[in-house]
Amino acid sequence: MTGEVHVSVDELRLSQELAGDGSRAGSADVAEYALWLGDDALILSQQLGAWITRAPELEEDVALANIALDLLGHARSLLRYAGSWDGRTEDDLTYFRDEPEFRSSWLVEQPNGDFAQTVARQFAASAYMFELHSALRTSVDPTFAAIAEKALKEVDYHRDHAVQWVLRLAGGTDESRRRMIRAIADVWPYVGELFRDEPLIDRLGGVAVRPSSLRPGFDAVVDAVFADAELETPAVADSSAGGRRGSHSTPFGHLLAEMQVLARRHPGATW
Amino acid sequence: MTGEVHVSVDELRLSQELAGDGSRAGSADVAEYALWLGDDALILSQQLGAWITRAPELEEDVALANIALDLLGHARSLLRYAGSWDGRTEDDLTYFRDEPEFRSSWLVEQPNGDFAQTVARQFAASAYMFELHSALRTSVDPTFAAIAEKALKEVDYHRDHAVQWVLRLAGGTDESRRRMIRAIADVWPYVGELFRDEPLIDRLGGVAVRPSSLRPGFDAVVDAVFADAELETPAVADSSAGGRRGSHSTPFGHLLAEMQVLARRHPGATW
Repeated sequence: MTGEVHVSVDELRLSQELAGDGSRAGSADVAEYALWLGDDALILSQQLGAWITRAPELEEDVALANIALDLLGHARSLLRYAGSWDGRTEDDLTYFRDEPEFRSSWLVEQPNGDFAQTVARQFAASAYMFELHSALRTSVDPTFAAIAEKALKEVDYHRDHAVQWVLRLAGGTDESRRRMIRAIADVWPYVGELFRDEPLIDRLGGVAVRPSSLRPGFDAVVDAVFADAELETPAVADSSAGGRRGSHSTPFGHLLAEMQVLARRHPGATW
Repeated sequence: MTGEVHVSVDELRLSQELAGDGSRAGSADVAEYALWLGDDALILSQQLGAWITRAPELEEDVALANIALDLLGHARSLLRYAGSWDGRTEDDLTYFRDEPEFRSSWLVEQPNGDFAQTVARQFAASAYMFELHSALRTSVDPTFAAIAEKALKEVDYHRDHAVQWVLRLAGGTDESRRRMIRAIADVWPYVGELFRDEPLIDRLGGVAVRPSSLRPGFDAVVDAVFADAELETPAVADSSAGGRRGSHSTPFGHLLAEMQVLARRHPGATW
């Protein structure tokens, strides 16, 4: 059959609409906070996207790709809000910031590693994001509240998914258990940064969530899952991570270069 | 808020359910034909997945990731059907076949290149797949007919999307037009293979679609789009492509290694 070509406006079947109503961020601090959250989602999305057809099962490829798409949706909502303060677009912020201008945490910057490392990172990140969006729903800033309301349903699934894998790997073969234990030990030094109260937070009372206030909820979930999986929370010192101040981990430079190379090769091009 | 963890059966919100009713392929030839189609979708999906957060716009990342997921769904349905003949799973076929056992066409194996090359490859592949699934809907094999019925709606969107980009790049800047023209010239030698009638097709009358029968529909679409974009169909000789017989292009080896490395490192593991 010869198909007609519909040379019409591109209809993207987006898996998510962007949250937020197009309001402008009310201050540079609000925009900065939006970057904190948006950059975490953006970088984690890029990392997970790399698993398409490379995960150990095709069904898992599909799951990770869907999670990556959810996170990309959160990132776009948050970066659009951040950019509204000074007239930058989500694409400006993604492709034309230099490394010190990014605000992502070191946790999401850690490499995919073997599958267990991706699972450990994903468990910590999604358990944190669940607490974050739960609390951010009551922000006095209606844009943050709307983004959190939508994101919470999705990160709830992401966390359940990660929990299943932690249990499956910890309770699987000797090899999978050994790898899961090693992965948690590798990832855990980067957990502390997520809950650190930077000075910005003091200036955003009622708008931002105080990171340290999320720690008890996070710990309760982690303790329950680790108990079920017969794993111990590793006794590790926090890394010197300073992502919220623009100081990034070694793997981040390469990751950023890959993300930006195409857009930067043709700045201002129509594509 | 401390969330309860639902340590329940993983609920994947799959973006697509798999088509087909679990029937067993009726002959080795039917299984072989399912591999032809399934491998094309699988390899193209892997290629497109690499664009997540690397496309020139975040909206385009989302679009390409959704297309990759659609194709992964087609691949899974087709590989599951192929494997039903001799008791192999979709994962066996994806991760544990060697290069000569793959049946993908050289077109989908070509590298992502710059964005224009991805667009050119995507235009040719989706225009072909649209004709293919249109015709395959009337296959006497109910599994192929069901897969095609579902896939057609999706590849219709893929083709529209690719057409928009061909027009946008060809009608954009001098640079984008130059790249679009070069990309089409690079990709077109691999188009001929898609429409070649191998001996297998003669043994599958009524079940398989005769590739050569799809060419007029494909050409009509390409001619219309190229006329609109003021592009010429390149006068190139067909490559020596032999993907349907297991002879693959140079880039394929690397692509396959990336896809299989994790699963092969731990054959038979529970993850």
